[in-house]
Amino acid sequence: MTKKSLEICFTPAAFDAHSDSEAVVVVIDVLRATSSICTAFANGVREIIPVETVEEARAMKARGFLVAAERDGFVLDFADFGNSPFNFTPEKIKDRSVVYSTTNGTGIMKRASECHDVVIGSWLNISAICKWAEEQERKVVIVCAGWKKRFSLEDAVCAGAFAAKLLESGKFCTICDSVHAATDLWNMAREDLLGYMEKAAQRSRLRDKGLDDCIPYCHTFDLTDVIPVLRGDRLTAL
Amino acid sequence: MTKKSLEICFTPAAFDAHSDSEAVVVVIDVLRATSSICTAFANGVREIIPVETVEEARAMKARGFLVAAERDGFVLDFADFGNSPFNFTPEKIKDRSVVYSTTNGTGIMKRASECHDVVIGSWLNISAICKWAEEQERKVVIVCAGWKKRFSLEDAVCAGAFAAKLLESGKFCTICDSVHAATDLWNMAREDLLGYMEKAAQRSRLRDKGLDDCIPYCHTFDLTDVIPVLRGDRLTAL
Repeated sequence: MTKKSLEICFTPAAFDAHSDSEAVVVVIDVLRATSSICTAFANGVREIIPVETVEEARAMKARGFLVAAERDGFVLDFADFGNSPFNFTPEKIKDRSVVYSTTNGTGIMKRASECHDVVIGSWLNISAICKWAEEQERKVVIVCAGWKKRFSLEDAVCAGAFAAKLLESGKFCTICDSVHAATDLWNMAREDLLGYMEKAAQRSRLRDKGLDDCIPYCHTFDLTDVIPVLRGDRLTAL
Repeated sequence: MTKKSLEICFTPAAFDAHSDSEAVVVVIDVLRATSSICTAFANGVREIIPVETVEEARAMKARGFLVAAERDGFVLDFADFGNSPFNFTPEKIKDRSVVYSTTNGTGIMKRASECHDVVIGSWLNISAICKWAEEQERKVVIVCAGWKKRFSLEDAVCAGAFAAKLLESGKFCTICDSVHAATDLWNMAREDLLGYMEKAAQRSRLRDKGLDDCIPYCHTFDLTDVIPVLRGDRLTAL
């Protein structure tokens, strides 16, 4: 059996170098977009429509959609709620369509749509995503949403855990230096994941805004089996 | 004393997110551009003129310049020699101007020229560069040349060693996740640096082309005190 190729892209700024129309892309934005999206599907949302700009989000609100939107951790004034996974409760979102726009995570989903499949990964659904990815006969590119085109530690470590799991399956091989670096960071962090994350800039940003209550939750493994997948302009559960 | 800010940019693709007209930029391309440039200055080159495109390099050759130029490890047909540091011997380059064009390293030097200073770093001059950078009252951004816009392990680990040295001086602080990741990788690699580099993709690329003879040399600390600095369109010794 030919092994499938595995890559990690640490920042959307480098996505062009990794993009491949035949690949499966796993988008990771641990704090907080992809953790929130996984939570929403676990809680029964019908679909999520990621939009890149504030203007699009505002226009969708005017059309009657439920809108979750933030920039730099602040809820936009017209939005129904922001980006904490704790907002996506069954009471609010079950069986509904939600428009979603965030600082980093939603833009890269749109850009990755040129690839064969785009799925949404987080600690919350790591085993489900890896099991599914192992079954696809395709190259896998894990894309970290990062922070304003920069590298972010929480996404890199999570990507490393995904990569380690995929490599352990024996079905993947890699010549991508980001995979080696990310798996080494994961191996360094795994004994005390939340402790390691103390130095992440996004951890400080969320703490400064009083938004860090969700951090332990966002680093919990396998709370759900949902696999959010991009179909056209929206995410649905696979 | 206010501590100065320290950042690492893992790939030229993300440089816009780190660029700052007031900052000092240290460009690192361990295998092999910046190692070769440091060697050239240690061996008495008068100046190095980095050019980005093959066409520019060819035009400079036609104007009578000595030209070092390669793409993907292969010497361009019109060039005098390629990118191995062993080419830059005193016999060939002492007191001469050399035009230089490589796959990854030269492009980012040009792009960084909008910053306050651009200096050329490698293992060969790490202590000299760090001592100089500590004396500047400026933010420092370490930029890894990478490989075709991708992350590369050998540059990231070297950047981590630079960052660790600068942070140890007590004169810098950081909120940049790349610095945390790179210093952790450096701490993981330092006990057996060449052994750690075995998994780097560029190590394999150079071996496949029989160009890996320079790898131990390129990972040797403090062979020289030269600080190549960009002045206008060319590099000179500070």
